[in-house]
Amino acid sequence: MRPSGRNLGEMRAVSIETGVLKHAEGSCLIKVGDTHVLCTASIEERVPPFIKGTGQGWVTAEYGMLPRSTSTRMRREAASGKQGGRTVEIQRLIGRALRAGVDRLALGERQITVDCDVIQADGGTRCASITGGWVALRLAVNKLMKAGDIRIDPLVSEVAAVSCGIYAGQAVLDLDYPEDSEAGVDGNFILRGDGRLIEVQMSAEGATFSRTEMDTLMGLAEQGVTDLVAIQRKAVA
Amino acid sequence: MRPSGRNLGEMRAVSIETGVLKHAEGSCLIKVGDTHVLCTASIEERVPPFIKGTGQGWVTAEYGMLPRSTSTRMRREAASGKQGGRTVEIQRLIGRALRAGVDRLALGERQITVDCDVIQADGGTRCASITGGWVALRLAVNKLMKAGDIRIDPLVSEVAAVSCGIYAGQAVLDLDYPEDSEAGVDGNFILRGDGRLIEVQMSAEGATFSRTEMDTLMGLAEQGVTDLVAIQRKAVA
Amino acid sequence: MRPSGRNLGEMRAVSIETGVLKHAEGSCLIKVGDTHVLCTASIEERVPPFIKGTGQGWVTAEYGMLPRSTSTRMRREAASGKQGGRTVEIQRLIGRALRAGVDRLALGERQITVDCDVIQADGGTRCASITGGWVALRLAVNKLMKAGDIRIDPLVSEVAAVSCGIYAGQAVLDLDYPEDSEAGVDGNFILRGDGRLIEVQMSAEGATFSRTEMDTLMGLAEQGVTDLVAIQRKAVA
Amino acid sequence: MRPSGRNLGEMRAVSIETGVLKHAEGSCLIKVGDTHVLCTASIEERVPPFIKGTGQGWVTAEYGMLPRSTSTRMRREAASGKQGGRTVEIQRLIGRALRAGVDRLALGERQITVDCDVIQADGGTRCASITGGWVALRLAVNKLMKAGDIRIDPLVSEVAAVSCGIYAGQAVLDLDYPEDSEAGVDGNFILRGDGRLIEVQMSAEGATFSRTEMDTLMGLAEQGVTDLVAIQRKAVA
Amino acid sequence: MRPSGRNLGEMRAVSIETGVLKHAEGSCLIKVGDTHVLCTASIEERVPPFIKGTGQGWVTAEYGMLPRSTSTRMRREAASGKQGGRTVEIQRLIGRALRAGVDRLALGERQITVDCDVIQADGGTRCASITGGWVALRLAVNKLMKAGDIRIDPLVSEVAAVSCGIYAGQAVLDLDYPEDSEAGVDGNFILRGDGRLIEVQMSAEGATFSRTEMDTLMGLAEQGVTDLVAIQRKAVA
Amino acid sequence: MRPSGRNLGEMRAVSIETGVLKHAEGSCLIKVGDTHVLCTASIEERVPPFIKGTGQGWVTAEYGMLPRSTSTRMRREAASGKQGGRTVEIQRLIGRALRAGVDRLALGERQITVDCDVIQADGGTRCASITGGWVALRLAVNKLMKAGDIRIDPLVSEVAAVSCGIYAGQAVLDLDYPEDSEAGVDGNFILRGDGRLIEVQMSAEGATFSRTEMDTLMGLAEQGVTDLVAIQRKAVA
Repeated sequence: MRPSGRNLGEMRAVSIETGVLKHAEGSCLIKVGDTHVLCTASIEERVPPFIKGTGQGWVTAEYGMLPRSTSTRMRREAASGKQGGRTVEIQRLIGRALRAGVDRLALGERQITVDCDVIQADGGTRCASITGGWVALRLAVNKLMKAGDIRIDPLVSEVAAVSCGIYAGQAVLDLDYPEDSEAGVDGNFILRGDGRLIEVQMSAEGATFSRTEMDTLMGLAEQGVTDLVAIQRKAVA
Repeated sequence: MRPSGRNLGEMRAVSIETGVLKHAEGSCLIKVGDTHVLCTASIEERVPPFIKGTGQGWVTAEYGMLPRSTSTRMRREAASGKQGGRTVEIQRLIGRALRAGVDRLALGERQITVDCDVIQADGGTRCASITGGWVALRLAVNKLMKAGDIRIDPLVSEVAAVSCGIYAGQAVLDLDYPEDSEAGVDGNFILRGDGRLIEVQMSAEGATFSRTEMDTLMGLAEQGVTDLVAIQRKAVA
Repeated sequence: MRPSGRNLGEMRAVSIETGVLKHAEGSCLIKVGDTHVLCTASIEERVPPFIKGTGQGWVTAEYGMLPRSTSTRMRREAASGKQGGRTVEIQRLIGRALRAGVDRLALGERQITVDCDVIQADGGTRCASITGGWVALRLAVNKLMKAGDIRIDPLVSEVAAVSCGIYAGQAVLDLDYPEDSEAGVDGNFILRGDGRLIEVQMSAEGATFSRTEMDTLMGLAEQGVTDLVAIQRKAVA
Repeated sequence: MRPSGRNLGEMRAVSIETGVLKHAEGSCLIKVGDTHVLCTASIEERVPPFIKGTGQGWVTAEYGMLPRSTSTRMRREAASGKQGGRTVEIQRLIGRALRAGVDRLALGERQITVDCDVIQADGGTRCASITGGWVALRLAVNKLMKAGDIRIDPLVSEVAAVSCGIYAGQAVLDLDYPEDSEAGVDGNFILRGDGRLIEVQMSAEGATFSRTEMDTLMGLAEQGVTDLVAIQRKAVA
Repeated sequence: MRPSGRNLGEMRAVSIETGVLKHAEGSCLIKVGDTHVLCTASIEERVPPFIKGTGQGWVTAEYGMLPRSTSTRMRREAASGKQGGRTVEIQRLIGRALRAGVDRLALGERQITVDCDVIQADGGTRCASITGGWVALRLAVNKLMKAGDIRIDPLVSEVAAVSCGIYAGQAVLDLDYPEDSEAGVDGNFILRGDGRLIEVQMSAEGATFSRTEMDTLMGLAEQGVTDLVAIQRKAVA
Repeated sequence: MRPSGRNLGEMRAVSIETGVLKHAEGSCLIKVGDTHVLCTASIEERVPPFIKGTGQGWVTAEYGMLPRSTSTRMRREAASGKQGGRTVEIQRLIGRALRAGVDRLALGERQITVDCDVIQADGGTRCASITGGWVALRLAVNKLMKAGDIRIDPLVSEVAAVSCGIYAGQAVLDLDYPEDSEAGVDGNFILRGDGRLIEVQMSAEGATFSRTEMDTLMGLAEQGVTDLVAIQRKAVA
């Protein structure tokens, strides 16, 4: 029934290649099916003004799509003079999600910026960005710990995300673009490796939904994130 | 336990005054405790390019805060030269929410813009904007129907929203600013008058949450929206 | 002869409600007929760079119109990415006018920002903003004086403004929108409560004018401002 | 008493050199003492959307200052990404002033843009721009008439402007920069060659003023504009 | 003598992988040593207004660097609200260079946009963008020809570019970042596969240069481009 | 053969009038045929952050065109909200060129900004800007030396620029606008008074070129710059 022939609860093939860029303190290329996101983590020994002097660190994120990551060319945001509403919304989400897995006192007064640049898009770019972004963050933190700049591991748990939705009347896991553009209900679920929920967003796109459907989607998401966390652990091992 | 002395499941006093502005096709001033939002609905006999010729209409929203709606003066967005990420995120949410209660074919090829301007802020401005925005929309649609421009009522059901969160370890309904700024988990719940879910957003702000807590918050929200819909119905009667 | 049926030298009904917002140090809602402006005064204990260290304070103003304050919806300036020329011109005028009633040394090194937001427009919004803005400023200064932060009253005199113009060949006081859009000559007159002139702007809009007409308009304005000052005094008493 | 040694009612030396640029339909370099403004008039066979199809033309103006026209270098507005409030205010004034001398039906559906670029500034740049701008406009219109594109002269009368102010307690004509920066009251007076008033702006800058002072300034201005119009007539003869 | 141990006239290892993205009509990843650029070519069946109706096509380019392509993180241009001067200069150069190898009549009224996004930077990104950009362009044109949309091959010759400079007093080919940042003279040479020159830019960066040095650099460049063209031909074969 | 009737190696008449503005530390009006550029040099006793504390000075440049310097009116860059790509490219070039003639340690920690504003354009504005800009710079430096603020002359040599190109198949010196708009190859050559090369830019505009043609253009440029330097020396004597 799914355009890709997948089962309702079946994710796309996921791979995470680490250390793909030589300058970044942490980097990976995550592929979730045909969605490919390049994630880097950059350490700076300064924090934003609002936490200066608190002894706490900060994790923030930026998101972008290459102009031809999509099936028709998008206008380059740098050329149009600003980041669109969708971009701003997504990068705020990624930053918020990653911070929920960080002990900011253990991180110390430094900032890590996670950049997620979509090389190729086929649905689920924000979820792939969070999952890959955490891997880049983990690698950068490892570097700080190896150098002795940090003693206690500030990463409390993994952070991973997956989308679920109602497509053709059925609850399905990990929507690709053909599904995403047709789904009546669309959700993004961000969880930690320890099973705690970080962010749940479910949104009607044409159809509304019931509490029962909400519960079904939530269940699929928990299962999907469990798989993603296993892949993250293997990638950073 | 709550700073305001309210019970865990108790909303603030809500009032909706309609017809407060003479130019707008629909308008109301919604007060949810000390959060006051002026909502207007403006009808235009044109639609955005992407639906031109489809016979369908469009409902969109814009959101703003007056500079001194907050306890310290905010910079005016018109002066800083752009709408911030939070503003963009909120107005996209309001528009999406209202559209989920609209039969766009019945509306016909016209656009209704709902403006939500926060006069005074004390937490929950986006939820108040949605609840009040729907009232302004209802009044504008009534005008179109009375004039015979529309035959079938395009408003399928009411749309209302409420926030819930975990404050001091307890699930509470309708957070005011002192609660909102301290809450570990914060959620916005948008439902229709017929009980269908439109959008659910739950977000960890420091603390993460469990599925049980998620269910409790959802339950509080359902009860809160039921009350709001009753107030909406009375306001537009 | 006037669309409203008023006499040539008759102002619209004016009311000023004070203390309408809980956060601002000073606030009022001024209604001049159907023109409604929300005015707030916000105190900050810092001054612009160019007067730092001089012991003098500063009063500045910002002006905005809600998108549906007008008969057809205006584009939100925050969305279009900048304040238009008219807005910039008006807010510079309001600030300059209010400063002409202030002893800036007595105010001390602090800044008061007066925000004038037009809720509903029907002609004369800049004059209503000045008249209402002064009331908000007065209330904020009262607060500073009551708190003992200021000893000598820095407000030398009231500041109020009214428009006059030549409509259908006749000099009239306090133009409403139907008059304003047809007037051949349009003037704004800003005076102090002690009768001194602060700013006079008369402008041909289609028709030019003679010195005699200029004198007649000036005379009407003096009479109008006398009435406005009486209303201001009552409001802040 | 005046820094320049001029009498109270004495203008600076004024010269207008025409035809200084080869591309513009009309051009002149006006020198009012050390204030030098390059004025050009550019004809386009199109009008702004709001008058399309009305058979009327439009005259508009733009104003700029070269970065080193002033005693210390100003930031280039093109580099700072927008025209400042003062620039916007001045160019709106110039356009409004010039239009008051134009029969827009006689002009026909075309637009003339008058650019006023300040090469060197020593006070009174907006007045010099209007006076010089009219000359450029006259020359461009002459070209249209000579070519037979216009039959009836659309320029009803000359338009010229001068500043007056109260400097060291005395009413003086045509303020230069040292006077302008010290003047307690500052006014700009725009008149037509036939003596009709177009725009009067008097503004307190520290001191307020009385009606008697207002009348004295007005009288000086009428005398100054009479002289300027004579110079304009000679320049375009 | 060179930091990398290369001979004076020795280029870095160059590889070009084609077809790396599924959406773009043409794409490649070019690696010149540690400089990696992702190049895509996007076809649109429309042309810019200035050539509409001429029967000619257009080739244009855009350039960007991922924030962490560099050794310290750069600010994202989309976030800073505009493309910097260097970016604008480079993308104009790439477009101009590629057009010099195109018969725009043979291309027909369509536009091909070549996007060059630097994944990792180590000197020479603009030259790598041109060389890789041509390959993407070639692949997109092949697609048009295969589909029968174009009859005559519009690509007259290959276009490739290389940098040369004077490093530590010696003329060297293909500067990497350590050389580039120290070179006294820096040049970019763009040639066609048939040996014709498209663009030569030589620039003193601290040191000036003589005609003899200019000739030496030119000679190195010719040799470098010959090698690059061979690699291009192999990649698109 | 040339539209102007000039010989292939003949420059237009060049004049440089110095001291044309009273505020600038150095100024000149350079006329190269009908191309007229006003150049000023402004001294500031501060340097950009990146060289603070190094004891070195900085020379930078800005470039602009008056809206009606061209045959049809250009949009004012201040009004369109940003400097176009061409402007940015040119002003970077002017600054780089002038710095190549400056001993920045001898200049000391101060900045000189050279503004080049095109009053009238007829081809070759960037070259005229460099040649005239150097004269303004020389005059400003003379002022510093006369005042004893600088001991050792920081201007190592003159800097001048000329364009050459291939027009109608022939190599010609100093292209005017009719030639420039038709030339198949266009080059800008910046040299010092001592014959050293600073920047060479040759660019195909439709036609490509050979090394022999490149050499011919270079030869013409050397001869042209020799003449320009003689005129510069006379102007500043």
